[in-house]
Amino acid sequence: MSTTEIDTPTSTGSSTEAVLEVCRRAREASRALALAARSDKDRALHAIADGLVAAGEAIVAANGRDLERGRAEGLPPNLLDRLALDADRVAAIAAAVRDVAALPDPVGEVVRGSTLPNGLRLRQVRVPMGVIGMVYEARPNVTVDASALALKSGNAAVLRGGSAALESNAVLVEVIRAGLESVGLPADAVQTIDAWGRDGVQTLMRARGLVDLLIPRGGAGLIRTVVENATVPVIETGTGNCHVYVDASADLAQALAVTLNAKTRRTSVCNAAETLLVHAAAAAEFLPLALPALAEAGVRLHVDDRAAALAASAGVATEPATDEDWAAEYLALELAVGVVDDLDGAIDHVRRWSSGHTEAICTTDLRAADRFTAEVDSAVVMVNASTAFTDGAQFGLGAEVGISTQKLHARGPMGLAELTSTKWIVSGDGQVRPR
Amino acid sequence: MSTTEIDTPTSTGSSTEAVLEVCRRAREASRALALAARSDKDRALHAIADGLVAAGEAIVAANGRDLERGRAEGLPPNLLDRLALDADRVAAIAAAVRDVAALPDPVGEVVRGSTLPNGLRLRQVRVPMGVIGMVYEARPNVTVDASALALKSGNAAVLRGGSAALESNAVLVEVIRAGLESVGLPADAVQTIDAWGRDGVQTLMRARGLVDLLIPRGGAGLIRTVVENATVPVIETGTGNCHVYVDASADLAQALAVTLNAKTRRTSVCNAAETLLVHAAAAAEFLPLALPALAEAGVRLHVDDRAAALAASAGVATEPATDEDWAAEYLALELAVGVVDDLDGAIDHVRRWSSGHTEAICTTDLRAADRFTAEVDSAVVMVNASTAFTDGAQFGLGAEVGISTQKLHARGPMGLAELTSTKWIVSGDGQVRPR
Repeated sequence: MSTTEIDTPTSTGSSTEAVLEVCRRAREASRALALAARSDKDRALHAIADGLVAAGEAIVAANGRDLERGRAEGLPPNLLDRLALDADRVAAIAAAVRDVAALPDPVGEVVRGSTLPNGLRLRQVRVPMGVIGMVYEARPNVTVDASALALKSGNAAVLRGGSAALESNAVLVEVIRAGLESVGLPADAVQTIDAWGRDGVQTLMRARGLVDLLIPRGGAGLIRTVVENATVPVIETGTGNCHVYVDASADLAQALAVTLNAKTRRTSVCNAAETLLVHAAAAAEFLPLALPALAEAGVRLHVDDRAAALAASAGVATEPATDEDWAAEYLALELAVGVVDDLDGAIDHVRRWSSGHTEAICTTDLRAADRFTAEVDSAVVMVNASTAFTDGAQFGLGAEVGISTQKLHARGPMGLAELTSTKWIVSGDGQVRPR
Repeated sequence: MSTTEIDTPTSTGSSTEAVLEVCRRAREASRALALAARSDKDRALHAIADGLVAAGEAIVAANGRDLERGRAEGLPPNLLDRLALDADRVAAIAAAVRDVAALPDPVGEVVRGSTLPNGLRLRQVRVPMGVIGMVYEARPNVTVDASALALKSGNAAVLRGGSAALESNAVLVEVIRAGLESVGLPADAVQTIDAWGRDGVQTLMRARGLVDLLIPRGGAGLIRTVVENATVPVIETGTGNCHVYVDASADLAQALAVTLNAKTRRTSVCNAAETLLVHAAAAAEFLPLALPALAEAGVRLHVDDRAAALAASAGVATEPATDEDWAAEYLALELAVGVVDDLDGAIDHVRRWSSGHTEAICTTDLRAADRFTAEVDSAVVMVNASTAFTDGAQFGLGAEVGISTQKLHARGPMGLAELTSTKWIVSGDGQVRPR
């Protein structure tokens, strides 16, 4: 999954100044965006959606040039697939922009408030972050998605979309900027720094005072690069080594359905299960059901010794699980399978190997459910439900900006509110504080 | 204010491993802390308060050795003053710990929740961060404060309190650890890495996966060092270049009281005003009142040309304001004073020079108040009230962990809730997600 895209040629010392200038213009534009009424932001979003449909041919043509270059450079088929746009996909992207327009505006929401004994009236109000940097890999749809979400939440966006989608993104950004201008909002609220390649990202990551938040979206390599080098605040998203634990007391039919759904519904997404743990008391009954079903679904199985013995009796081919398997985010039809002595063993395993995204327990034992949810330290803990439900739309948050696996600011699926900060507004009539 | 304390001798490659081991033990202890009932945490806090009082003599003696070393090394008097402990100050520190025990426990609060159409029940629940690193300067009271707040919010703490308070902090940490143990909580929930000096801080700042949040408390130099070097999440606190703007429509008697209070109530705190801006239409009336009153209060005045002319007529001594003055957080009886053409001039000045902490407008004009509060991008914006009110206790948040000047996670005064994250708990009965 991690094909880092922070790597195009271009690079001179002057690129630093050029990227900082982009960030300064974004900062200036963010002032207008922060004050824009919802109606103006929504009009801009509809103008952008119209623009995307109208520019469909130009977008597909630019994308064709990216695909051609990608094929010549030997990009793997799954990357080419994510990169590819056709008229239908452009229409779907435009429709998603209209969906964002329909969402409530998070800006201005009063989070809490009170009147103090001295008469001061306090309100804590949601305000935009300001300038949001997005660094992502070759997915042109993210260019539009991220811009729409930033805009709706009153933020300016500086985008770095990866060299593989260079031409597609250039056209998309042009359409977005035209849409902003058509309703009187500053075009510089959405800018790309793709032209400055890797140097540009380095500058963006360290543009303190100009960039309020940086969100990397992509593989573990990209996220690690950003976290290691950024001095602006970062939200890590989307690394999911998710676990399903089948407890001694589980309803095994349910557990089988949950396991199969969590592993095979979609394998390339971060909420897919990557490890199955089974209580020793349930293993002899559950694994002879689950392993053949998984194998039949095409899942390659990496198993520990106890699971291996049960797999052998069931005639299912497996290979031994190593520490690499326990750590792996396969994002493929592969699954690590282990038998644990008890609930403690499961919790310890999860705490050691999980990326903190989503874990599920299958159990009918209330105490086991309570302990698992309390002691597992992940963004989302499911009881008798598939890990596949960890998703902003499924959670009813409207749009999803990403799934945060960190604990600061946002944890789990991030909606529009997570792209805002707050401000305290304190109204008085000349109050001073006693010494 | 910025006398960086990240600088003691000691330093070998093996210190990295030693500090990582401290963090690992903190991580392990954080598991027990996260699950501890409020009653146990409160018992620990009371045991710590009792222990502080009982160990009063030993604490004051250790502090005496720090003070002696500090004098020998030529520490400035204000630092020695902050460092000094006597029996009364120890009693006050113990009382503050009991105050923290009396606060509600933020852990377990259900932030939001819903039941989805498919029957899944969602709850977003407050949980501890895990391990919090605190890096601060020579103030032994912070050792106890920070530990008490971390404990109450279910977190383990790793402390770096600065070489000047080395002996005081060692005794205080010993008392805290004994208090934890006396109620059956792990002593390793509070540890110090003072023994490893500067190297220890470097390791702490980069202990990803072991440290969930790092809070620097101190001067701008300390905070910059942490922000530049940390790879763990950081909350910046407490740099306050606060402004008071007196609008054309201000009630000048109120404006004078607010200005004097904001500047002179306490000068060493981050919510003190550092710049006074006056609308041109009010300057000729307001400054001949304000400048003599400020001068009489002992305030050294750095003024722009227009203010200089009015000061001269009023017979008040001033010196010219430079860009350094507009940028300065004096934390002293000094004030930069400027005359602006209008509200836009004031907003532009604040946006350019403010550290984003607190700004106040004095006005009777509703539109001016609305524009100032909307367009000034700071954590707290006051209307007709002193900047001195920006404070956790004043805001009714109970304890104050610090005042965040960043936009991510926490902005403005931080209470116990800001030391927590959240976790989604999703309860089902076998739900799987359709393809």
